[in-house]
Amino acid sequence: MKIVKFGGSSLSSGVQIRKVFQIVKSDPERRIVVVSAPGKRFKGDVKITDLLLKLAEAILNEEKTAQIYEQIFLRYQAIGDFFKIPRSGIEQLKEHLYSVAQADYPSNDFFRAALSAQGENMSAHLITLIFKQLGLKARLLTPKEVGLTVSGEARKAQILPGSYAKIAKTKFTDNEVLIFPGFFGITKNGLINTFSRGGSDITGAILARGFGADLYENFTDVDSIYAVNPGLVADPAPIKEMTYNEMRELSYAGFAVFHDEAILPAIQGKIPICVKNTNRPEMPGTKIVPRDKVSHKNKITGIASSHHFQAIYLHRYLINREVGFTAKILKIMADLNISYEHMPSGIDDLTIILDKNQLTNGRKEKLTQRIKDEIQPDDLQWRNDYAIIMVVGEGLVNRVGAMADIVDPIRDAGISLTMVNQGSSEISIMLGVRPEDEQKAVKAIYNDHFENGHPKKELQIPRASFKSVSKSLIANFFV
Amino acid sequence: MKIVKFGGSSLSSGVQIRKVFQIVKSDPERRIVVVSAPGKRFKGDVKITDLLLKLAEAILNEEKTAQIYEQIFLRYQAIGDFFKIPRSGIEQLKEHLYSVAQADYPSNDFFRAALSAQGENMSAHLITLIFKQLGLKARLLTPKEVGLTVSGEARKAQILPGSYAKIAKTKFTDNEVLIFPGFFGITKNGLINTFSRGGSDITGAILARGFGADLYENFTDVDSIYAVNPGLVADPAPIKEMTYNEMRELSYAGFAVFHDEAILPAIQGKIPICVKNTNRPEMPGTKIVPRDKVSHKNKITGIASSHHFQAIYLHRYLINREVGFTAKILKIMADLNISYEHMPSGIDDLTIILDKNQLTNGRKEKLTQRIKDEIQPDDLQWRNDYAIIMVVGEGLVNRVGAMADIVDPIRDAGISLTMVNQGSSEISIMLGVRPEDEQKAVKAIYNDHFENGHPKKELQIPRASFKSVSKSLIANFFV
Repeated sequence: MKIVKFGGSSLSSGVQIRKVFQIVKSDPERRIVVVSAPGKRFKGDVKITDLLLKLAEAILNEEKTAQIYEQIFLRYQAIGDFFKIPRSGIEQLKEHLYSVAQADYPSNDFFRAALSAQGENMSAHLITLIFKQLGLKARLLTPKEVGLTVSGEARKAQILPGSYAKIAKTKFTDNEVLIFPGFFGITKNGLINTFSRGGSDITGAILARGFGADLYENFTDVDSIYAVNPGLVADPAPIKEMTYNEMRELSYAGFAVFHDEAILPAIQGKIPICVKNTNRPEMPGTKIVPRDKVSHKNKITGIASSHHFQAIYLHRYLINREVGFTAKILKIMADLNISYEHMPSGIDDLTIILDKNQLTNGRKEKLTQRIKDEIQPDDLQWRNDYAIIMVVGEGLVNRVGAMADIVDPIRDAGISLTMVNQGSSEISIMLGVRPEDEQKAVKAIYNDHFENGHPKKELQIPRASFKSVSKSLIANFFV
Repeated sequence: MKIVKFGGSSLSSGVQIRKVFQIVKSDPERRIVVVSAPGKRFKGDVKITDLLLKLAEAILNEEKTAQIYEQIFLRYQAIGDFFKIPRSGIEQLKEHLYSVAQADYPSNDFFRAALSAQGENMSAHLITLIFKQLGLKARLLTPKEVGLTVSGEARKAQILPGSYAKIAKTKFTDNEVLIFPGFFGITKNGLINTFSRGGSDITGAILARGFGADLYENFTDVDSIYAVNPGLVADPAPIKEMTYNEMRELSYAGFAVFHDEAILPAIQGKIPICVKNTNRPEMPGTKIVPRDKVSHKNKITGIASSHHFQAIYLHRYLINREVGFTAKILKIMADLNISYEHMPSGIDDLTIILDKNQLTNGRKEKLTQRIKDEIQPDDLQWRNDYAIIMVVGEGLVNRVGAMADIVDPIRDAGISLTMVNQGSSEISIMLGVRPEDEQKAVKAIYNDHFENGHPKKELQIPRASFKSVSKSLIANFFV
C-alpha cells in the first residue's frame, strides 16, 4: 500500500487535478492521498494558504473580508466547474469556512492555525467529490478520525507518539481511496494545529509510518532530486536512489526539494520514499530508502552547497589543553541561543562556524563582547563570509582515496580550501571555500565524477562488496 | 649576546664539559651559560637529579643515606679531578648539600624541590670553578641574584611576570661569562621551587627573554630537529629553520627534542632559538624563529604523529541545530577534568577525540555514564584507538592544492583516512589513520616531499612571495 502526497502546484487547477486523478487511478496500491491547498498556477499567482492567512489578519484587524473570501472561493469554484461538480459542493465549503472563521479560539495564533488549515481541508473535500464524480470509490479521511494528535505551541505542532498506533487501527475497505488533508493535526482539546514547516510532507510521512506503507510517494513539480543544484550546473545528473542519511546530509547544505525534518516519521518507520513529478509521472523520480535497501553504494550521490556562514577565530596558547575553555564559549552561545555548524580546533586555535542568519539583532556584537570579557582570548577575529560544500555518498568516506577524489579536482580548478572536515559523518565530507569560489568548486567536483548527466561508472560500488566493506567498518570504526 | 643552555648529557663527564668549554670560549657572544645537572654517561647510568630525589625519599623515610651521598659526590669529584680542581671545591659542594638537606621546609614537596634543584646548583658551582681554571673570566649567577621569582605549588613553579624586568637590570661586565643553574627559581618567601617540566630549557628561555638575548642556543645531543621521527623514517631531513608556531604544532603530536611549553618565554620575547649538538657544534642545528624572521616558507616543515588517541562517537538527530548540546558534553568533560584534542561534527553526529592517557581511574566509564544519563544520545560508541598525524608548514595551508599534496600520497599508499581536519590552524593539517597505518602514512607523505634527506625544491616558497601571499591572507582570512 502506498501513501501518495501531492503538493500545491499539483492541485492548483482542474488540469493539474486531472493528472493527479490519473496517477492515483493508475495504481491500485495508491490508497491514501494526502493533499495540499491549491498552489500557484502561474508566476505571480497567490497560494490559497497565503489568502487564508491574509483573511485571518483582516478578521483580527476587523477589516473588510468579502473580497478575500471571494478570491478564495473562486479558486475552488473554478476547479469544481472544471469537473462539473454541482455548485452546492462549493457552497458547503463556504459555509464550512465561515463557521471556522466565526468560532472561538484560545489565542490569535490558534485562530490563524485553524484558518490556514482550511486550504487543505477544503481541498480534501473537493477532491473527494471530484474523484467520486470521475468514478473512484473515494472517501474523505480526517486527522480527527485517524487520531493524528499533536501537541505544542500554536502553529508549531509536534506529532504525539501515540498517534501512530491509533492511525494503524484505522479501517478501510478494499478499492476505497482515502483523501486526507495535509498540514495539520488535532490537539488533545480538539483544536486544529498546524505544523511549522514542510506542511503536507510531514502529514504524508506520519501516515506512511502509521499505516506501515510500502512506499511514500511525494509528488511535486520536478522530475527528481539532482546530484547538484541545477542553478550551479546545467542539466545535472538525476539521483535515482539514495539513502535517508544521504538525503538528510544534502538537505542540510541547501537541497530544497523538501524539508529534511518533514520526512523524519517516514525515516523512523523505515518507509521508502519516492519523489516524483505530477507532470511527468512516467519518470522514475528519486527513491530514498534505508541503507539496507539500497541497490548500490555511490561514492558521490550529491554535492550541496550554501554560503550563509561566518566564523569566529579564537587564538590562545594551549587552548586544547585547557579543560573547560570550549565549554565556556558554548555556554555563552547557548545563552544567546546561537548554534554552531562546525568547530575545528588546533593546538592554540579554535574556529566556530555559524549560520550567519542567526547573528541578527545585535547578537554578533553580544557574542563578541561576552567572549572577550569571559574568555579573554589572545586574539579574536571574525572571518569573512564563506561557503560550505557538502559532498555526500554512502561510499564516499572510509575508503582509500576518498579525500583525494574530492580535493584533486578542487586543486586542478585552482581553488584553495579554507576548511576541510572529515571524521564525524560516515557519508560526507565538508569543505570550506570563499563564496566567490563556491560555484567553481562545486562544478569541479561534479565534472570529475559525472558525465552526460550520469555518474561515471566507477562511482558505484556493487551491493555485494558494499556489504563486506560495511562489515569490516563496523569492526574497526562503526557504521 | 647569546644565552647558551646545556642539557644533562652535555655535562655528564669531564670529556663532555671540555666540549662545553670550547663551545662557550669559541664565541664571545656566549655570555650566559645555563647548566643542567650531570646526566647519564652511558646506558644504565643514573642522572644526578634522580639520585637527589632518591636521597630526598631516603631522608623522608629516615633510611640510610650515606651510600647515595657518596654516589652523588663521586660524580662531581670525577668531573673536578678531570680538570684538576682542588678537592676543597668538592668539599664545599658537600657542605652545601648537607645544609640544604638539614634545613626546614613548609612541606615535603618543597623539601624535594630544594634537594632536586641541587644537581643544577652544584653543577653551576663546579663549572664556574672549571671555567676559571681553564682561563675564562667565569662568575656564578643565581636565580636569587637576578630575581628569577616563581610562584605556584611546590615542584610546579610558574615564573612571575615581574621577573623579566628584574632580570633585565642585572649588571655584568665585559668579557665575563656567567654560569647559571637551570630548573629552579625562588619564591617570594625565599624558598627554592622547581619547574614541573622542561627543566633547564625553561630557565634558558626565561633568561633569554629577560636579558633580551640575540639568540637562545639550546645544546643537546642531536644534530638537529628532523622533519620526521627518525624512528619511523631512516636518515630523515634535518630542519634547518622553522617558526615558533611550526615548533609548537610539531611538539604537540610527538616531537620530543624539547618541551614546547618550556620555550614559551623565548617565544614571548621573540628571541630566536637554535637547537645544536654539543658533540658536533660545527653542525648548523635547527633555528626556531619568529614568522617575520624566517628566510623562506616551507610547504611542509615536518610531519609528527602520535597514536595515543581514542574517540567517542555520538549520534542524535539534528545534533547541530540543538543549541547547548555540545556545551552540556563539555561541561561533563570539564567536571571530570578531561580535555579534548579535536571535535568534528556533522548534521546528526559528533565525535570527540581524546588523549587516552586521560581515561584512567574509571574516568572513561564515568564519562560514558554521564553522557548517557544527561545527554541521552541515540547512539554512543567508543571508537578504537587511532593515530593522529600532524603535517606542519607555514606554507602548507591556504594555497591551491594544499590538501591534495597531503592526501594523494596517502591514497597512493593504499591507506584510508578516518579523520581530516583543516581549518583552524593556518599552518597544519591533522589526519587520522588506524594505528597500524601510522608509519606507512607518515612515510608516504614524507617520501612525496623529501628526497636524499632534503626537502624537494618546490617545497620552499621564497620569502618575497611569502610576504605578498601573507598580505592577501590577512585581508581575507587572518594570519
